[in-house]
Parts: sequence; structure tokens; C-alpha cells
Amino acid sequence: MKIICSKADLLNGVNIVSKAVPSKTTMSILECILIDASSGQIKLTANDMELGIETVIEGEIISKGVVAIDAKMLSEMVRRLPDNDVTIETDSSYKTIITCEKAKYEDIMGKSGEDFSYLPQVDRSDYISVSQFTLKEIIRQTIFSIADNFTNKILTGELFEINGDTLKVVSSDGLRISLRKVQLKDSYPLKKVIVPGKTLNEISKILPGETDRDVNIFFTDKHVLFEFDETTVVSRLIEGEYLKIDNILSADYETKISINKKEFQSCIDRSTALVREGEKKPIILNILDDVMELKMNSLKGRLDENIDITKTGKDLMIGFDPKFLIDALRVIDDEKIEIKFLNPKAPCFIKNDEESYIYLILPVTFNMI
Amino acid sequence: MKIICSKADLLNGVNIVSKAVPSKTTMSILECILIDASSGQIKLTANDMELGIETVIEGEIISKGVVAIDAKMLSEMVRRLPDNDVTIETDSSYKTIITCEKAKYEDIMGKSGEDFSYLPQVDRSDYISVSQFTLKEIIRQTIFSIADNFTNKILTGELFEINGDTLKVVSSDGLRISLRKVQLKDSYPLKKVIVPGKTLNEISKILPGETDRDVNIFFTDKHVLFEFDETTVVSRLIEGEYLKIDNILSADYETKISINKKEFQSCIDRSTALVREGEKKPIILNILDDVMELKMNSLKGRLDENIDITKTGKDLMIGFDPKFLIDALRVIDDEKIEIKFLNPKAPCFIKNDEESYIYLILPVTFNMI
Repeated sequence: MKIICSKADLLNGVNIVSKAVPSKTTMSILECILIDASSGQIKLTANDMELGIETVIEGEIISKGVVAIDAKMLSEMVRRLPDNDVTIETDSSYKTIITCEKAKYEDIMGKSGEDFSYLPQVDRSDYISVSQFTLKEIIRQTIFSIADNFTNKILTGELFEINGDTLKVVSSDGLRISLRKVQLKDSYPLKKVIVPGKTLNEISKILPGETDRDVNIFFTDKHVLFEFDETTVVSRLIEGEYLKIDNILSADYETKISINKKEFQSCIDRSTALVREGEKKPIILNILDDVMELKMNSLKGRLDENIDITKTGKDLMIGFDPKFLIDALRVIDDEKIEIKFLNPKAPCFIKNDEESYIYLILPVTFNMI
Repeated sequence: MKIICSKADLLNGVNIVSKAVPSKTTMSILECILIDASSGQIKLTANDMELGIETVIEGEIISKGVVAIDAKMLSEMVRRLPDNDVTIETDSSYKTIITCEKAKYEDIMGKSGEDFSYLPQVDRSDYISVSQFTLKEIIRQTIFSIADNFTNKILTGELFEINGDTLKVVSSDGLRISLRKVQLKDSYPLKKVIVPGKTLNEISKILPGETDRDVNIFFTDKHVLFEFDETTVVSRLIEGEYLKIDNILSADYETKISINKKEFQSCIDRSTALVREGEKKPIILNILDDVMELKMNSLKGRLDENIDITKTGKDLMIGFDPKFLIDALRVIDDEKIEIKFLNPKAPCFIKNDEESYIYLILPVTFNMI
């Protein structure tokens, strides 16, 4: 194999597919990037068997062929090359030479592509299309509340539910639920899948996030495939049924407040200065007419603050993990937000009128001192 | 005590003195910042007994007094306050209230200043003056080659030698020497002291680095005191005699080359892509007429590259730890540099004609394969 491509294109491609290289594995072939120039394209692929990424880079194929090279090493070499054309050449034993201007890496031990797992073939009949920007945003606005351990595998993923022209994305760690809805340009048949959180994390890192370029998302029973620009990402789905959240989200309320989001967020952030790392301390909200008192008590001291609000319904005192409130407030762009409460033991709902976002957070018990 | 100052001034002061708060200590008073408003100024101080920093902040003293507050906690609270005036108020038991707009931290347990060690009194007769920029630069250009362990305490510091109108700063870890000279505006009597590397590291972090503002540096037998803007830094000196380097630096040479610094640095950097973390592999320079060949061999592969040079003297093949060369090249601003060599076992010298910088690096042995 002998190919020539620009350093910038090569580095960009290597960075993209490297996201599917596992950090720990006993199978050394999984640590490799496959450079496939056996057809008319230069294609880079990495695949950890759960998540696979493939991208096509511009370049000239002097002689066709395939080689697998250790991903970390390839990245270390390529990023240090001058900004110019790079030649990659392998012999029949997959010994590789990489040259750029006067720099020449030699005796790089490549592998044949024989043991390499190409991306699975995925049927492309069932799909939706959203802008790169929308997909990247919707991941950012929900990914923080997936469960990070494997006691409930389903909760380590996010529900993607398509219903007509609406895409609904839901995450939950059992103590809170984050939900975002976006409107699609077209209408599609009903579809529900659970996409692994890791896949979404990696996709959001490599998605350029352009508003005027789309991602096509294809679904099968076992896989989801994301296609954008020159890149294809295939991931296994998590099997099983996601939480039934419709009942939970349609709950009643007794108290509704409207509050300046930034003031609320800053105040909660201030309360965390009193919490030691690893310690759990609730922030206590005392909701009265026109004003909410916020209090935090810890061994280090106390925080007391008032924020003006508009309230309808009953007075209420309720406590929350400050981190959970901050996580949700950080990804809401509205200046004013509405929060609904039922009682001190029931979750609160931060949502807008259209319900394009709903953040449900369970309260915590606290001692009145 | 009751004082009022702006959040920005307070935060800046807290950040400055925090550099003298030890990360680990069994004496909780050392983890505190002393706020001293007992005279007409608001003075913040931290002191780990080796290094002490004091800074004066603007503000209004409503009632005089002193309180010591845990540094980390003070910093966590202050940086989360709104950008407005902050009031700090203590009662007779040093219980502290910090208020800013509607935010109020209460029951913060301060300590009396009784156990706190103020900065030592330092005689201010012996001193020099340099610009903040110069001091910050000279530290950056030498600090990387101090020894980082304590087998030879002297080498964990840097020599500051004043002779007439010249300040010479030297660091060495036993395998290389970095030397920088700057010309002072005035002439001073001969003085040699060894300043701890940690002190210099912290100073360079808090020095604004302005070209038109000076640092006064006062020396005694035991201490060095840096005074700039509203800040005073006092550090113990390292006792003992520094390496005698004059003989080493006046060594002869047999080969001299002139080379483009950036090309040389990029090529060495490329060679490090082949080195595993923690592994030591030399880069081998083969100096011929008009060209230098650079080679790196590792289990991962080889790098081969040529760079055009101007050479006088003998041909030479010599090996170096690539990190040592990169460390020195990174802090040299010249486009072309000169390097002098004697033989494959003797150090090389990177220096300019005026000898305002000299970087000496010991070679390593290597196998010719």
C-alpha cells in the first residue's frame, strides 16, 4: 500500500476514529487503526466491538492495500509531522514507512487487516435526519444524568424515541430524569431505542456541530448508525425496555414558582463552597410569597440568601442535592424558568410551557436545625 | 473586625497569598490566611515557614481586628460571590460573617491570629531591582533544570549571583546546567545566594510580569525578600555553596554548528513519538559537513531526518536525551543557535556570543546498530 494525503486531513481522521479505540484491552488488534486503501478511497476505521468509527480522508492512492497500525503511536507520529503531504507506504510484511518533507519514520510494525473487525453492515431503511448542532446540543443537555455504574445497564444509556415529527431524548440515573424534545423536519414511524451513553459522549466530541449540516441516524434492532460528513459511527444498542416515564412526568403540583435562572444557579453554586468533597449536604429552599429563602448548613458554616420569585399555590420547604439542581440549570438557556412542586417528598419539575425540556429532580430529606 | 472591600481585590489577594499555603500539614493554623486589619491597612498573609507571602488590598476598615480563616474555604467562598462589595465581620470568638449583596455566609469558624507566624523581619540594606518581566522570564528559562529530589538539597534551588551590574541565575540537576545573565540598571556589591526552586515557581505564578514595573529583591544571610506592587514574598535561602561552574563552562570545543532552532526542536520532538512513557532512548546526532543526520531507534520503529547546518571543526556522532534538548530549545528565542561539542563523552554547549544564555547538556552513551 502507498498513499499520500495532507497532514491535516490525516490527523483529523486519526483523531476521529481514535475515539473508538479502547483504552484497555487484551486484544492488540483493537488498539489499531485500520488504513484501508483497497478500493478507490482511503478509509480509516477503529472498532472496540461496541462502538465502531469509520472516516474517509482525501488523498491519493499510489498502490492499493490495507494496514493496521497502533492508534496511539500513529497519532503521536502524525501530529508531530510538518504541515505538508504525508506518504504512508507498507511492504508485504506490513512494515511501514511514514515520510513528510525530510522526516522519515521507518520500521513501524503494522499488522495485516485480517483479524480486524470492520463495522457491521447495518440496514439503512429506518432513519431520521437532524442537524449536527441539534444532536450535539441534545446530548449535552441530557448526558449528565445517565447512571455511571452497571447495576442497571439500561440507565447507562439514553432513550431515543421518535414519534411522528418529534425526537425525544431521555436520561435518568434513578434520582432524576432529563428530557429534551426536538422537532424534526420530516415525520417518521414510531421507534424507541436505547443508545449507550459512551457512544453519545464520543459522538458529541467528534461532531463538528454545524447548524447547516445534517446527521442521518439509522436504526435497526441491534444497532444505531450515525452518518455525518465523511464519518460513520456504528454502535450496539442496549437491549431491554426503558423506564416508563409518562406517568411520572404528568404529575400534579401544589406550588409553582417563576425565578431568574442565573440568580438561582449562582446562589446554589455559592452553597457548594461549604460542602467538603464527597460530602452530601442539601440546599434547603423555603418558598414563601414573592421570595424564596435558600439555606445551606454544614460543619464549615452556613449560607443564607433570598431570591425574589413569583409564586402561585402553597408555601413549601424542600431540600435538594445542590449538584443535581446545578446540572439541570447549567443546560437551560432560558432567562426565567418555572419550577413545580407537590410536597417535600415529591420530585420538582423544571420545565417550559412547550415541554421542550423537562428536568425532574427528587428531593432529599433534611433536618431542620 | 469589620472590613469592606471589592470582591475582585479580595479574590486577587486571596489567590496571591494562597501560594504560600502548604497542601499538606498537620498544623491547621498554616492552612489559614490571616486577615490583619489592626493597623490602617487590610493585609492578607500566609506562611508555610519556608515561604511567606503578604499582600495589601484596598478596602475600608470599619472596625480594627485580626482573624485567621482556612485558606481553601475562604477562596471557595469568595470566588463564588457576586462582583460587588464584600463585608467581612468577626465577633470576639472569631466567628465570621461574609456578606455580599443578598448572599450571606455565617458561622464561619475563624481563629485568633495568636498562633500565626507573621513574615520574619528582613533587613533591607542589601538589594537589587529588576523588572517584573525580566524576573519572570529568567525563572522560566532556568527552572526546568533544577533537581526535583532531595538527595542534593542545593540543586533543588537556583543560584542568584550579583556581580556589579550583572545578575546571573543558574540551575542544574547534575546532568545539565542552565545559565542566564541579565544586565541590571545599577551596580551592586558581589552577592551569591541559593533560592529554593519552590519559591521561584510560586513567585513566577503571582508575578504580573509587567515590563514597566519593578521587583525589589532584598538579601540577607538566611532570607530573600521579593517586593512588587502590594505584595511581599519572603523565603528562606538554601544554605551551602553552589556548584563551581566557571571551569566547566569555559571548556574547549572541537566542533561548532549553527542550526535553525525551530527545525532542530521539531525534529527532536518527532523522535519522542517513538519513545514509550518512562523509557529512555537517545537521539543520535551525526554531524557532517553542512548537514546533521538525526536518528532515533526504539522498539516501535526508527526516525531518520536531515537538517542543514553550518559546521566548523571535526565530524562528530553524539547522543542526547531528547527531553533535555527540547527543554533548553523551548526557552531560547533566537532563530539560529550555535552549539559547541568536544567529543561524544563531553557535554555540548548551546550559547550565544554574549553568553547571556548557556545551556550545557551531558550526552548519553548509545549503541550503534
